[in-house]
Amino acid sequence: MADFMSRDDLDFLLYDWLNVTELLERPRFAEHSRETFDGVLDLSHDMAAKLFAPHNKKSDQNEPQIGEDGRVVLLDEVTAAVRAFSEAGLNAGSFDEELGGMQLPHTVSRASMVNFQAANAATSSYGFLTVGNANLLAKYGSPEQIDTWVRPMLEGRFSGTMCLSEPQAGSSLADITTRAEPAGDGTYSVTGTKMWISAGDHEITENIVHLVLAKIPGGGPGTKGISLLVVPKFLPDGTRNDVALVGLNHKMGNRGTTNTLLNFGDGTFGVEGRTGAVGYLVGEAHKGLRYMFNMMNEARIGVGFLATALGYAGYLQSVEYAKTREQGRPVDAKGPDVAPVPIIEHADVKRMLLAQKAYVEGALALGLYASRLVDEEMTAPDEADRVRAHTLLEVLTPIAKSWPSQWCLEANSLAIQVHGGYGYTREFDVEQFYRDNRLNPIHEGAHGIHGLDLLGRKMVMDSGAGLAVLTETIGATVEWARGAGGEAPGYADALSAATGRLAEVTAAAWASGDPALALANATVYLEAAGHIVVAWMWLEQLLAVGDREGAFYDGKRAAARYFFTYELPTTTSQLDLVAACDRTALDADPAWF
Amino acid sequence: MADFMSRDDLDFLLYDWLNVTELLERPRFAEHSRETFDGVLDLSHDMAAKLFAPHNKKSDQNEPQIGEDGRVVLLDEVTAAVRAFSEAGLNAGSFDEELGGMQLPHTVSRASMVNFQAANAATSSYGFLTVGNANLLAKYGSPEQIDTWVRPMLEGRFSGTMCLSEPQAGSSLADITTRAEPAGDGTYSVTGTKMWISAGDHEITENIVHLVLAKIPGGGPGTKGISLLVVPKFLPDGTRNDVALVGLNHKMGNRGTTNTLLNFGDGTFGVEGRTGAVGYLVGEAHKGLRYMFNMMNEARIGVGFLATALGYAGYLQSVEYAKTREQGRPVDAKGPDVAPVPIIEHADVKRMLLAQKAYVEGALALGLYASRLVDEEMTAPDEADRVRAHTLLEVLTPIAKSWPSQWCLEANSLAIQVHGGYGYTREFDVEQFYRDNRLNPIHEGAHGIHGLDLLGRKMVMDSGAGLAVLTETIGATVEWARGAGGEAPGYADALSAATGRLAEVTAAAWASGDPALALANATVYLEAAGHIVVAWMWLEQLLAVGDREGAFYDGKRAAARYFFTYELPTTTSQLDLVAACDRTALDADPAWF
Repeated sequence: MADFMSRDDLDFLLYDWLNVTELLERPRFAEHSRETFDGVLDLSHDMAAKLFAPHNKKSDQNEPQIGEDGRVVLLDEVTAAVRAFSEAGLNAGSFDEELGGMQLPHTVSRASMVNFQAANAATSSYGFLTVGNANLLAKYGSPEQIDTWVRPMLEGRFSGTMCLSEPQAGSSLADITTRAEPAGDGTYSVTGTKMWISAGDHEITENIVHLVLAKIPGGGPGTKGISLLVVPKFLPDGTRNDVALVGLNHKMGNRGTTNTLLNFGDGTFGVEGRTGAVGYLVGEAHKGLRYMFNMMNEARIGVGFLATALGYAGYLQSVEYAKTREQGRPVDAKGPDVAPVPIIEHADVKRMLLAQKAYVEGALALGLYASRLVDEEMTAPDEADRVRAHTLLEVLTPIAKSWPSQWCLEANSLAIQVHGGYGYTREFDVEQFYRDNRLNPIHEGAHGIHGLDLLGRKMVMDSGAGLAVLTETIGATVEWARGAGGEAPGYADALSAATGRLAEVTAAAWASGDPALALANATVYLEAAGHIVVAWMWLEQLLAVGDREGAFYDGKRAAARYFFTYELPTTTSQLDLVAACDRTALDADPAWF
Repeated sequence: MADFMSRDDLDFLLYDWLNVTELLERPRFAEHSRETFDGVLDLSHDMAAKLFAPHNKKSDQNEPQIGEDGRVVLLDEVTAAVRAFSEAGLNAGSFDEELGGMQLPHTVSRASMVNFQAANAATSSYGFLTVGNANLLAKYGSPEQIDTWVRPMLEGRFSGTMCLSEPQAGSSLADITTRAEPAGDGTYSVTGTKMWISAGDHEITENIVHLVLAKIPGGGPGTKGISLLVVPKFLPDGTRNDVALVGLNHKMGNRGTTNTLLNFGDGTFGVEGRTGAVGYLVGEAHKGLRYMFNMMNEARIGVGFLATALGYAGYLQSVEYAKTREQGRPVDAKGPDVAPVPIIEHADVKRMLLAQKAYVEGALALGLYASRLVDEEMTAPDEADRVRAHTLLEVLTPIAKSWPSQWCLEANSLAIQVHGGYGYTREFDVEQFYRDNRLNPIHEGAHGIHGLDLLGRKMVMDSGAGLAVLTETIGATVEWARGAGGEAPGYADALSAATGRLAEVTAAAWASGDPALALANATVYLEAAGHIVVAWMWLEQLLAVGDREGAFYDGKRAAARYFFTYELPTTTSQLDLVAACDRTALDADPAWF
């Protein structure tokens, strides 16, 4: 059976390319060693293989149900896997030792987590949501809140959710209507309905810590009035809080993750003399969105990893299928006397495998690069390096979310195609990966939102510091590559030209000063910028390969060649479109449709 | 509720563009009139709306099952719809009057059928398979076979299948192992296993007529030895023939169509003293593949229509959603005091709707254009015109199959994206369209097969007659457009340049004379050629629009503009790759994956 993640690739990216062992020199990671990193990677792959992968199909085919008692019924395997994950301390992998964490570098922690995502996207979500929630509360919560909510989450006794969307407000958080009113005792009464809440109700943990965006009266209009509150399923004294499961959403994929519609304060579990669910304000009132954005950046990179993991698992399965399935003959050796060959011998199948390889390994490199920036942002000795890492991370986050969501979904489509008719059946896994992965361009900011974020904010923030840091950093790779051997100098020229054009086009888009016109093709801009960034990731990998010999390194060279030959050239027409400030979409009249 | 097909668009394409009423001057269609054409279109939409669309989701959620008695259990609604379709005479829409047919032009018949495909892809398949089967048998069968099998199929008493693939041989028909041995009485004994047989068993009709590819001993190796046989479920005397249902395939989408694994001659229904299922040879022995290809061309265009129909239904639903769902504010009018707008006001949503419109209306135009060529091939008064139509149809068939399968699937993905999280749920229809449509790049020749067909055969056949006819025909449109007003002359220049480049690249690909190298990037060539052909379809539509006023025509103009601005330019990098005879995929070593 095909593996779901390549340890060789993770080792190459972490150690040969990103030099994570350099981090051991920093105080935060001083207790670690290559051995502890390897230990976490070994443990993660092993646990993912034994407890997550085996029920991936079963949990797709047996969605969470609401039982007769109104409780969510999950497969036992889901509960067992999520508990084993937290019992192994993995909820707390990158957290401070002081909180019971392992204090791992983010880069290593992400590399270990991607194993779970690849083995079982749906089951892995429970732990990941808890980690994201705990991470935010650890940063912005009071010491008491940390003790009450964060520590039990890191221990695995509690789990966490993010409650942002509402039925009428997905991408548009300004329009949320959930309210939090001071109850007079320091707590808040929370009332409203939240939609699309993953892991919103279940019995895996003793308690569920909902982080809820709500408006406290007097906070000003729109997003300014939004505050962040902890609204637990059970109050610290054990009382059931008024958070009611209204229904489960039934999705195309990602079916194993409980996805809920929740009512806060509708009286289902009302406490005598009290209206609304009990909520505890996190940090200051009206600053909730700022706090949440901190977690959203992390969550967005996490979505990129999820998309990557699904693409990776499908890629490995299609490689195995292509090597074992015999059919057809070489184009130049037809005839009935020639025996059928494994389909991996056909050029078009190789093209589809190269494309998948270039997408999934490129996306994995991008995700780990972004994670390395998180480590730099936190621990680089020099402040200028920390600021630089922060700026670059801001620029790369929309790409690290959206690019894998687009192209690793395409990888899954190619994995189906390599399997032929079999790939379209539920006897194989690749159709599930494709369905699961289709979620990723939708949640944590729909695809188009990231185009607005990149071209409307990140590239132009601080007088263009975002774009400047990106082009400088790519420029350094280009310079290095120009002095290297093999195909690197040629690719360096192509990347340099594309990056230069991206900078020109950014200016051209904004030349009119009219945001509506500048951003009319922001999604096309996002997609072109993503391809340029991933070409950079491939040039970086090629440089890390150097002159090493062997199939693994030749495969990296071939994937880099594929990306520079088949993919990077597609950005030319995209960037021309953006530079022209084309008005076709902007000026379209709704009556025409 | 959104419609599934636009009658306005069909009327425009049939009457304003393709001038199907011109066909009324030809003897074959002399009994028809605009009124009879309209009547069939009205009937089809009406029946599709009343009997097909309502159970589309239900049949997705309630797949065919094998009951305890071993029979296939379908929803009653499926049976009722398929029977109503044939009772209305629609199985026989384009057949000769002599056979009880309506003798409709193919163009009109396809336009009526696309309503059923859009309303319910899965249920529509039963009738379409019967039509395809009957079409082939009517052409190559003996008069007795026509009376015994074709007439009952056209009357709706029997249904038909195509049995080509086997578990070990999908795209590679040379490797089929099903055997047909002369039984001594003029019939053949058929033994073997056929895979992916749609409508392979059910109780909708009295009998099922399987058209089976099998090898008759002595027929030579590979595809040369393949013969075509009728193997009915029940023999003419009512005896059950030895065709056994082994199992049902469970697919990602298209779940409502019974898809079967069938054993022929395994003894399950064996007749005393006889081994193998009883088969009747169609035409001459060893010529089966030639006959089947005739049907496959029709089936391939049909798959293109199926993909188009699914894309079209998703497009119309996403338009309705975008017009009614309010969220967010214009980029240049943010702020809490501004009320949320329908999302169709956002440029990126309009871009996604324009893309869908350009894909699905472009694909529909292409399918109907190909169907018009079928009519020309059959009925043009001048033989040179018939030959020309035949050649152009041969060239366009791989594109008419593969382009909609690729881009109307992409349209379905965009329809999900427009719906946001709701689109990912099974409460809406668009996720089903996406799952259903993912079949189309796989069956009737996997996507890559059509690249080999186009670049390896169709474009270069008869010393390049295929390419020549295509470029001449596009050239005529270009000349016309250069003399037209509005944006047509500019698009004509762009299309002319792209077509010229396509011709150059065709020659460049074959310059080495090495088929392996020439065809190494045949899929990329196919995709570029498809975009050029659809750009031509858009220029044709723009010319048919002329200077007419109104939202419908402005919408056509906008979609043409979208296609020439966003889509056609993407072919440049694709064609450069093919021209360079890039060896990246060809030379990839399986060990690198």
